[in-house]
Amino acid sequence: MQIVDLLFGRPLATSEERAEHIGPAAGIPIFGLDALSSAAYGPEAALTLLIPLGLAGIHYIVPITAAILALLAILYFSYSQTIEAYPHGGGSFTVAGENLGYRAGLLAAAALMIDYVLTAAVGISAGVGALISAVPSLQPHTLGLCLGVLALLTLVNMRGMRETGGIFLIPTYLFLATLLVVIGVGVVRAVLTGGHPAPVVAPPALPPVAAAVSAWLLLKVFSSGCTAMTGVEAVSNGVMAFRQPTTKNARRSLTIIIAFLVILLAGIAVLCRIYHIGATDPGSPHYQSVLSQLTAAVLGRGWFYYVTIGSILLVLALSANTAFADFPRLTRAIALRGYLPHVFTFRGRRLLYSWGIYVLVTLVASLLTLFGGVTDRLIPLYAIGAFLAFTLSQAGMVVHWQRKGGHRSKARMMVNGLGAFATGITTLVVLATKFTAGAWITALLIPCMILLMMAVNRHYQRIGWETACPGPLQVTNIHPPLVIIPMDRWSRISAKAIRFALSISPDLQIVHVDSPDVEHGKDELALIWQKNIAEPMRAAGLSEPRLVRLQSPYRLILTPILDYILAEEQSHGDRHIAVLVPELVVRHWWENLLHNQRSSLLKLMLLVRGNQRIVVINIPWYQN
Amino acid sequence: MQIVDLLFGRPLATSEERAEHIGPAAGIPIFGLDALSSAAYGPEAALTLLIPLGLAGIHYIVPITAAILALLAILYFSYSQTIEAYPHGGGSFTVAGENLGYRAGLLAAAALMIDYVLTAAVGISAGVGALISAVPSLQPHTLGLCLGVLALLTLVNMRGMRETGGIFLIPTYLFLATLLVVIGVGVVRAVLTGGHPAPVVAPPALPPVAAAVSAWLLLKVFSSGCTAMTGVEAVSNGVMAFRQPTTKNARRSLTIIIAFLVILLAGIAVLCRIYHIGATDPGSPHYQSVLSQLTAAVLGRGWFYYVTIGSILLVLALSANTAFADFPRLTRAIALRGYLPHVFTFRGRRLLYSWGIYVLVTLVASLLTLFGGVTDRLIPLYAIGAFLAFTLSQAGMVVHWQRKGGHRSKARMMVNGLGAFATGITTLVVLATKFTAGAWITALLIPCMILLMMAVNRHYQRIGWETACPGPLQVTNIHPPLVIIPMDRWSRISAKAIRFALSISPDLQIVHVDSPDVEHGKDELALIWQKNIAEPMRAAGLSEPRLVRLQSPYRLILTPILDYILAEEQSHGDRHIAVLVPELVVRHWWENLLHNQRSSLLKLMLLVRGNQRIVVINIPWYQN
Repeated sequence: MQIVDLLFGRPLATSEERAEHIGPAAGIPIFGLDALSSAAYGPEAALTLLIPLGLAGIHYIVPITAAILALLAILYFSYSQTIEAYPHGGGSFTVAGENLGYRAGLLAAAALMIDYVLTAAVGISAGVGALISAVPSLQPHTLGLCLGVLALLTLVNMRGMRETGGIFLIPTYLFLATLLVVIGVGVVRAVLTGGHPAPVVAPPALPPVAAAVSAWLLLKVFSSGCTAMTGVEAVSNGVMAFRQPTTKNARRSLTIIIAFLVILLAGIAVLCRIYHIGATDPGSPHYQSVLSQLTAAVLGRGWFYYVTIGSILLVLALSANTAFADFPRLTRAIALRGYLPHVFTFRGRRLLYSWGIYVLVTLVASLLTLFGGVTDRLIPLYAIGAFLAFTLSQAGMVVHWQRKGGHRSKARMMVNGLGAFATGITTLVVLATKFTAGAWITALLIPCMILLMMAVNRHYQRIGWETACPGPLQVTNIHPPLVIIPMDRWSRISAKAIRFALSISPDLQIVHVDSPDVEHGKDELALIWQKNIAEPMRAAGLSEPRLVRLQSPYRLILTPILDYILAEEQSHGDRHIAVLVPELVVRHWWENLLHNQRSSLLKLMLLVRGNQRIVVINIPWYQN
Repeated sequence: MQIVDLLFGRPLATSEERAEHIGPAAGIPIFGLDALSSAAYGPEAALTLLIPLGLAGIHYIVPITAAILALLAILYFSYSQTIEAYPHGGGSFTVAGENLGYRAGLLAAAALMIDYVLTAAVGISAGVGALISAVPSLQPHTLGLCLGVLALLTLVNMRGMRETGGIFLIPTYLFLATLLVVIGVGVVRAVLTGGHPAPVVAPPALPPVAAAVSAWLLLKVFSSGCTAMTGVEAVSNGVMAFRQPTTKNARRSLTIIIAFLVILLAGIAVLCRIYHIGATDPGSPHYQSVLSQLTAAVLGRGWFYYVTIGSILLVLALSANTAFADFPRLTRAIALRGYLPHVFTFRGRRLLYSWGIYVLVTLVASLLTLFGGVTDRLIPLYAIGAFLAFTLSQAGMVVHWQRKGGHRSKARMMVNGLGAFATGITTLVVLATKFTAGAWITALLIPCMILLMMAVNRHYQRIGWETACPGPLQVTNIHPPLVIIPMDRWSRISAKAIRFALSISPDLQIVHVDSPDVEHGKDELALIWQKNIAEPMRAAGLSEPRLVRLQSPYRLILTPILDYILAEEQSHGDRHIAVLVPELVVRHWWENLLHNQRSSLLKLMLLVRGNQRIVVINIPWYQN
């Protein structure tokens, strides 16, 4: 247990819970890493699609980024309202479920679960991908590196919330600081030179024009750019993880995260245009990431360049942490409403919803393995889930304000309605432009998950009805059970079983299977029976138990016993049948190989083929 | 079940046993296939070692074969006596154990088990190897073919003895007939031409002399040739499988098998010398087996050649069947004396000792996989086991006759003594000449297996002492147990459990863990307790059960319950504690994923950490 303590920290009592809550400064790395790190791949994904347009393509990045930022602003105001209205955590699942009905809630739940799994997978694979474009010799180990990072993240997260925040604080703020310096210096130089600064290291020349601009292409660019927004949901879903006052701290975190994201996205777009920086072909040997080109152009390839690139690598890989923080909370919320197994509501030794983490890790590992850890293949599955959840959440908020009524609610309804409309349109655009590239997988998975969750709920409801509310205990009509003891030979084990049986009921049957394979004859048993069992009982004035001898032409032992027990149960319609199963418990597990496992098998068969009136009593006999 | 019946035949009742016994004609393929088929690889293995001597080497094959045949003759007379003295099956294990003490018996048992596993592995790999030298394109699938043949043999053997004999009858007699024709025609031609017949198809020229003859080389040749004798043990071990009169039928089978083997070995040796046929290098592209050269030289490459080669291939692969017939009988004999798990004594649905077959198949499959299905690598492990067993068996027979006394016993003692001496020397020769090539593995395995069997026996003896012979049942001092019921909430399941508890004992404790995670407060339980449990019991005049509430700061449920039960057991030193574990049984196995497995875990923990006085009562509650 000491190794476990060292790895995951000592177990925490439930009374220590408060100490695990966080403030806004710690909230930014935990809930904002996903959103902020997307600045590293969102613009790049958009610019990659603009490559065929050559130099002209770069001109489109500013208006498209503007559109994305407008959408982001709408989302910000919309979600600020959600945090206020749902201080106990207002994820899409809660908001959509409470306001639009449980089917909409399940749709949001499915969308979000997929989104979180992909967040983790894309974050890890993008980080490893960036590391590999810096150190190409690591290329053959892509998948191994991805899984290694996943294992490390799991370890960190199993220690619990506060310590996690501590570990992520430094890389996140380093990432923000370095990128803000790059953007600040770049903008100042551009202003000083009248918009035409000379790059310290010139970016690669842009390729010649290979295609004409079209509305469809620009829509695709917009869809890719929208991956920069998937982290916004996280804060509102995790409100209750914040220190008191939770709402205020959560809103402050959201504001800071969105503000930084706006500055990063806008700065990157403007500087790309000014410095004529475009994406390079991801497959080619001359590939260089947009942020690498930008940093080199503004500040050259000194130590600052390597610090910047290093922090980008770290933050990308760590962005998967948002999923670790939120996925278990989401599955807990769904499980509390009975749509996922109850096990998701249990808290482990470090006060975490451990099963959510286990399932997340399993799914992310499968996804990474399936797609070989390549970001490019995962991106098209992404974003739909997030935008579907945004739309449902904000549509739910519209209904929420409508129900609440009043003057202020009307304005708020407008804000959330605008958000719902904008994200709804975006969802359709993303689905249409990415459908054949992989979005169809997500589109197929969501209904499957909804069906699964409904089946889980039906099961819980049925069990609930069947077992609930029995009223006061019925204490009449209680009779001792009929006890049946299977016995193979007269031993201390059988003697112990019979003594126990006599202590709970006067009504006893001992069943023996006369196997033709057994060497000692039938008469031996009859003799033993008279001398060792029947006589002492008669002497003590007890009624002699019934000895039942079963024949077994096919040398089966358990089947005749089971058939007999079921037949007895039929003929004693009103009584419990207690089957007494003696069991030898050996000292070492491997010694079990030396004994037939009939006791365990009989217990299992009785459980499977038995019924309400058959009870199994297990009498263990321990080897000295 | 119908598919199982189709594959393995309908189940057989124990009363149908007699019908499965066999006559001498069926005994030859079953117990003699191994011995006879070794004519196909024994001479070849000897001749391969003579390659460096060139033409001169072939001259040595006749005297070496003569030595082998002399040894075989000694073994024949020796084993005929064993069959007569042990009509219920006189394997080395029985004979050595009864006459030389249990340690010698275990040594024989270990040697024989290894021998049978290798018989099967070598037979299969040699057959597949022969097939591959005929169809070289199958080379990459060597291991797959080996495992396929093993699966087929398993299937055939699972159907049972008589049907097995039927399947093997035709290839065995075809193999004998074709080889006898080849030898007969060859010898007649040699006599007619005065010892210098012209080959129909000339064998490849013999290589030039590359080494001088040495005693060590000739000993190695002899050792390799001795692999032709490993099948002799089989008949005496399987006497009881024969039809009445068993001894006579078994002896007749042994006589026929040895006679055929002598004819085959002698014929092959003589014709090789006359036709100047030597082995070819097994690794080279010009490789051709000795029997293929011989058949072509005597009768040409017509249809008869292909029938001969085909029957050799079949018989080699099927020779593994001897192991299938004898290994389960051997493990049963060892298990009956308590040196292997009892499970080896149980007969399956087709009256076979199924577990012996399962273990054999597993070991052979592992061995084939480990050695890639290559015969050359397996041969050095072989023969030691068999010769060690021969030696022990015959040494045991010497003691047997000595104990019996009388005039005829003296002569018999001489015969067996000669056999023991000859095979003992051979064992040492084989061990010495093959030690570094792989015999060390066998030499290491044998003591390990002996230690294992002794450990198994010690365990059975200890359990036997501890549980045996309790004398008459003690019927005094019987008190109802203290019943402890863990309860999480008031449900129909708990109500059923309490009602059953009241039916077996008046002394009841209900344990509830107050988890800080549970949503409903403590007062709710107190209310329910008063209203639904305590009040109805007081009304019925029963004593109110004790409600025990346990605290669990670390959110564990089972550990506090288990600790409480163990503490109660300590403070009630003289009573049984019956722990009543209610369990929900769902309709489909996958529904178990939706429920915590606390009941199963508690049962397991009680079994592992409990003691003689703690009994587990499992109350199943079935979902409708």
